[in-house]
Amino acid sequence: MSIKLFLPALAFAAALTGTASAQHQHGTASKDVVSKGYAAVKPEWKFTPYQFQRRSVGDDDVLLEILYAGICHTDLHIVAEHWSKGIFPMVPGHEILGRVTQTGKNVKKLKVGDYAGVGCMVNSCRRCEHCLNGDEQYCPKLVPTYNGLDTDGTPTMGGYSNNIVVTEHFAVKVPPDAPMEKVAPLLCAGVTTFSPLKYNNVQTGSKVAVAGFGGLGHMAVQYAAAMGADVTVFDVTEEKRQAAKEMGAVKYVNSRNKNEFQGFDDSFNLIISTIPVKYDADAYVRMLKVDGTMVILGIPPSDQMPTLRIDSLLGRRKVYGSLIGGIKETQETIDFSVKHNIYPHVEIIPIQKLDEAFQNIAAGKFQFRYVIDMRSCP
Amino acid sequence: MSIKLFLPALAFAAALTGTASAQHQHGTASKDVVSKGYAAVKPEWKFTPYQFQRRSVGDDDVLLEILYAGICHTDLHIVAEHWSKGIFPMVPGHEILGRVTQTGKNVKKLKVGDYAGVGCMVNSCRRCEHCLNGDEQYCPKLVPTYNGLDTDGTPTMGGYSNNIVVTEHFAVKVPPDAPMEKVAPLLCAGVTTFSPLKYNNVQTGSKVAVAGFGGLGHMAVQYAAAMGADVTVFDVTEEKRQAAKEMGAVKYVNSRNKNEFQGFDDSFNLIISTIPVKYDADAYVRMLKVDGTMVILGIPPSDQMPTLRIDSLLGRRKVYGSLIGGIKETQETIDFSVKHNIYPHVEIIPIQKLDEAFQNIAAGKFQFRYVIDMRSCP
Repeated sequence: MSIKLFLPALAFAAALTGTASAQHQHGTASKDVVSKGYAAVKPEWKFTPYQFQRRSVGDDDVLLEILYAGICHTDLHIVAEHWSKGIFPMVPGHEILGRVTQTGKNVKKLKVGDYAGVGCMVNSCRRCEHCLNGDEQYCPKLVPTYNGLDTDGTPTMGGYSNNIVVTEHFAVKVPPDAPMEKVAPLLCAGVTTFSPLKYNNVQTGSKVAVAGFGGLGHMAVQYAAAMGADVTVFDVTEEKRQAAKEMGAVKYVNSRNKNEFQGFDDSFNLIISTIPVKYDADAYVRMLKVDGTMVILGIPPSDQMPTLRIDSLLGRRKVYGSLIGGIKETQETIDFSVKHNIYPHVEIIPIQKLDEAFQNIAAGKFQFRYVIDMRSCP
Repeated sequence: MSIKLFLPALAFAAALTGTASAQHQHGTASKDVVSKGYAAVKPEWKFTPYQFQRRSVGDDDVLLEILYAGICHTDLHIVAEHWSKGIFPMVPGHEILGRVTQTGKNVKKLKVGDYAGVGCMVNSCRRCEHCLNGDEQYCPKLVPTYNGLDTDGTPTMGGYSNNIVVTEHFAVKVPPDAPMEKVAPLLCAGVTTFSPLKYNNVQTGSKVAVAGFGGLGHMAVQYAAAMGADVTVFDVTEEKRQAAKEMGAVKYVNSRNKNEFQGFDDSFNLIISTIPVKYDADAYVRMLKVDGTMVILGIPPSDQMPTLRIDSLLGRRKVYGSLIGGIKETQETIDFSVKHNIYPHVEIIPIQKLDEAFQNIAAGKFQFRYVIDMRSCP
């Protein structure tokens, strides 16, 4: 998720009530939905129980009972206002796995009892070139799953809660036999890494590097390996060396070890960088072959943003930033993951342990993905 | 031309004699060729008459009598060692137009009396993936036209001289009715701008920006307009406003005028940057549409290199650096230019005016391209 997505939220921050009575867009008579979750009340990694209302279920909407919600590194940035001002109280969470408990009359893709996922967005204009291309994530009117404003002007609230109302288009179908607690993070970490691997046509023999082997990185490694690539992993610790091999990497490089972090110039067709802190981006660009591409997925805080010298890019070495993926790609991510049995390494926690989980992620003490078991939600 | 190309030259600098007796690779009995030109004897923009020897004409070689040689901004950088150490005495010049006066026995493409051009490179391995793809400019064994080492170990000498010996593959054919003095700069400025426009599939309706409207920029504008693009030009002066329109631009922006240099976010499919000094590269990246591309052609001196924040690149906004083009593309450039009557704006000078021309280019006093008329060579 990017900085830009959350900027529209600023305009509304002053008017925030937290219990807004939504003017429902479909005009149905059904009642607003009561939600219970955990919220940050100010820009601090401290969460407290919070009850709020969601809009009633409209003709194109589904209501999901949330079973699991992943904790994304982005949640830390947004709560702490690392990129821009936030709307508080804030209920984060954009890796949502739930079961359908109610559907509007126009809903076709899902029925009550189905499993479904919701990722980083819950609405868009559906008419612009990006929406029509299946790139809803680049729609100027995109509504983020939390810390944004919905089409009715109310603030969106995310998945650290027991339910969510969402337009059917922005929910993707999950097969009933999938391991639901592991599917939740696919809605962000999964599609965010799957999308650039597909976009860059990774295939048998592709030389791929994954820089930063955490929540995003460990998904990228597994997908790239399943697509047939030779995968090299770069991270800053010895602790993940074994895990990288187990997930399909042919090589692991501890980039803090100077001797190890050399000799890679002109080596890779594709580099996926998920590094969430300041780093020497030029050093990675030099590792690209002619016509190679580096995709930026990790966006550090504004005051620690890495920069690139433009002369590093000679030889048609391309760099670009990618933001999640479209809804069609999200469905493909789920389908590919289930088919190839590719899931994140997760630790299931009760919602009461949110504060501790955030601290552990920030301190680099946790390797892959925390997932909240929503049965713990009071 | 890039920094990297000239690095191999360093190793030989100590052994330089300036009158090396070349061990000719084809082993023919013909004599070395005597050349007269102008050289810089140290890293200063001062040139003096200089006589030297080129290798004899081998079986795969042609000898060209040089008629015209363009002065490229890169020549200023290389002579002044802005990027790396140079080999002196140095005879610059990689925009060469000549007439064939001798051919080796294997030569097929050219015959005595033909017109031909030589650009930035005079040899490569011919076997690596880049050579086989027609991207000789990315061959690790590429031999630059000057300030490099030829395959026999002798330093290469460029086009500020009365003749050149070159492997047939690295000479491109020029139709006899072309305006020869204007063709010379096509060998670098032409192909360098034509290549990225083709690579990025510029066509009717493409929104293209050209930043920096000098020797390269004014070629980019004409090519892009001929391909059907809507072209916007960015430069820092009022003096070029009229010329931009005449060459096909729909808009000219004086980027020093704050009011004018705004409102372009999300506007262009392609930006070609030829700016040769430090500038705000992020401001240009923000002008790209989603999935747009910025191509870096201008490389400022090392200590003034622009940088990019990686978060500017979100939305699959790609940035890469491009280096001239391959030999096949160079031929296409010549053919496209002749067909569409697209040529640089040139001022013809005698070789004795080199010092003054360099000073004028450095001071931004000259708009487009100086071309040396080699009849002035003593």
